[in-house]
Amino acid sequence: MSIALIIPDRKLDDLQQRLQQALPETRIEIWPELEDPAEVEFAVVWKQPPGCLNGLVNLKAIQCFGAGVDSILADPTLPELPISRIVDPALTDAMVGYLDGIVSYYRLQLDVFSRQQQQSVWRPKSPRKLNHITVLGLGELGGAVADHFCQAGYQVSGWARSGKSLKNIQSFAGAEQLHHAVAAADVVICLLPLTSVTENLLNQAFFQALKPGAIFINVARGAIVDETALLAALDHGPLVAACLDVFRQEPLPSASPLWQHPALLITPHVSAVTNVSTVVSQIADNYRRAQQGSSLLNPVDLVRGY
Amino acid sequence: MSIALIIPDRKLDDLQQRLQQALPETRIEIWPELEDPAEVEFAVVWKQPPGCLNGLVNLKAIQCFGAGVDSILADPTLPELPISRIVDPALTDAMVGYLDGIVSYYRLQLDVFSRQQQQSVWRPKSPRKLNHITVLGLGELGGAVADHFCQAGYQVSGWARSGKSLKNIQSFAGAEQLHHAVAAADVVICLLPLTSVTENLLNQAFFQALKPGAIFINVARGAIVDETALLAALDHGPLVAACLDVFRQEPLPSASPLWQHPALLITPHVSAVTNVSTVVSQIADNYRRAQQGSSLLNPVDLVRGY
Repeated sequence: MSIALIIPDRKLDDLQQRLQQALPETRIEIWPELEDPAEVEFAVVWKQPPGCLNGLVNLKAIQCFGAGVDSILADPTLPELPISRIVDPALTDAMVGYLDGIVSYYRLQLDVFSRQQQQSVWRPKSPRKLNHITVLGLGELGGAVADHFCQAGYQVSGWARSGKSLKNIQSFAGAEQLHHAVAAADVVICLLPLTSVTENLLNQAFFQALKPGAIFINVARGAIVDETALLAALDHGPLVAACLDVFRQEPLPSASPLWQHPALLITPHVSAVTNVSTVVSQIADNYRRAQQGSSLLNPVDLVRGY
Repeated sequence: MSIALIIPDRKLDDLQQRLQQALPETRIEIWPELEDPAEVEFAVVWKQPPGCLNGLVNLKAIQCFGAGVDSILADPTLPELPISRIVDPALTDAMVGYLDGIVSYYRLQLDVFSRQQQQSVWRPKSPRKLNHITVLGLGELGGAVADHFCQAGYQVSGWARSGKSLKNIQSFAGAEQLHHAVAAADVVICLLPLTSVTENLLNQAFFQALKPGAIFINVARGAIVDETALLAALDHGPLVAACLDVFRQEPLPSASPLWQHPALLITPHVSAVTNVSTVVSQIADNYRRAQQGSSLLNPVDLVRGY
């Protein structure tokens, strides 16, 4: 019996070592070096090369090594097995901390002052009045983010595929309410899952529904946003600024026009990275559940796509 | 009887109008257009030209239009009268909000990511581990700032001229403990008053006492910092970054080498600006006290200089 770690382009020594400590009886292997593929019963997966799971004939369950499963589900040869994703309080805290810092950055006009500094220009400005925040996506992360800004004194509204009931948060649902949900927002935060429904959902019509002077932040997936529409909204309004942490192609190619747009802040997908030390027990728990044939923690609904 | 507003280079219509509403019986005049200097009994002052108070022969008290009184006391011809300063909860909130945002900016590595963006470079980094903050100056603002970061989970220490006892904050006092107070700090925040004792207090020896990788933030007065020593500490260590909101000369001259230093964030003295709407009642109250010969609210100790 073994667990395969199928996470290309990432150093896995630490994860392997910690999982081994949690599961001393089980072999922990790093793909593609597998002693015997038929022994693999559980796979921890992130952005796997399509087809690589097919040789694992005794695989019982798939553990996605992150909160968003779109890169796992994109594999057309994905075996029909239970899939679970990471739901990690440390990851939620990191996301809330990132967004709190980015909203402060815009509140304090640090984008404006940075540009003025480049030109040695002294021009004081009062803080931006950012009162109303709309969160798109009200799952584990979106719900926690909405709650954080609500407690910090912001007026918060949210939008999701289906209706959610969150304390003190005005909730909108369904495609027909999307534009209405963002019409009053000073800041719009995208925390949607990437699915066939949300791909390119934030298009020209969406950006034109925003309030003049609005700020857009994407910490979900790049492919949810039509980049051409985003750039047009920055160049001609209504957007005054945007912060992107995620992109259709990552790393963002050096030739992308996004890099040098003066109204864009680019961070290299750092808003909430899965933390090895806090997720090991969750992975070990799911492995034991898969062994016993029990249902997994944080299961993914393959029809919804998240 | 009149009140003179002696605040050069600032539009005063709003302040004049609001004070007039609060004190309908009193003439509110904007210096230098005074109907009769002998009628002025109270002056609201900020960075006054030296000597301009001398003609006000019936002046009873001086209200500084801000929290820091150094620019008032710098006038060698200042009459010997009671002086009060602004202590404003809105000003304190603004200062706390500014510093919270700046610490988040560094925690999230936004300084690093901004530089990488300029070069179209994608290089993810984990957040900086900023655990220990030292606040220099534990007056109204410094005490509130120390308390805020303490409640946000940081380890906080403070330093002041004389010993202070603040809950959960390790407190240092006196010149001999200054270097000791900052030795463990990841972030040092300067909120000292500018006096003959603090001018150039933060010199080469001070910066060399900091921990390698420390970050320095000055929101007090520019003249407290030896700029040459600060630049040397950025170029050769131990400082990794600094944020300056205040400068020896303001506006910062366009020829200053500070503007273009890659490890400096420059904001144009915006951290906490006196808010007209919240201070009018405080000024009106002090005017009435001066009329009655009572002691002023928030008096300035001329020996200490703050």
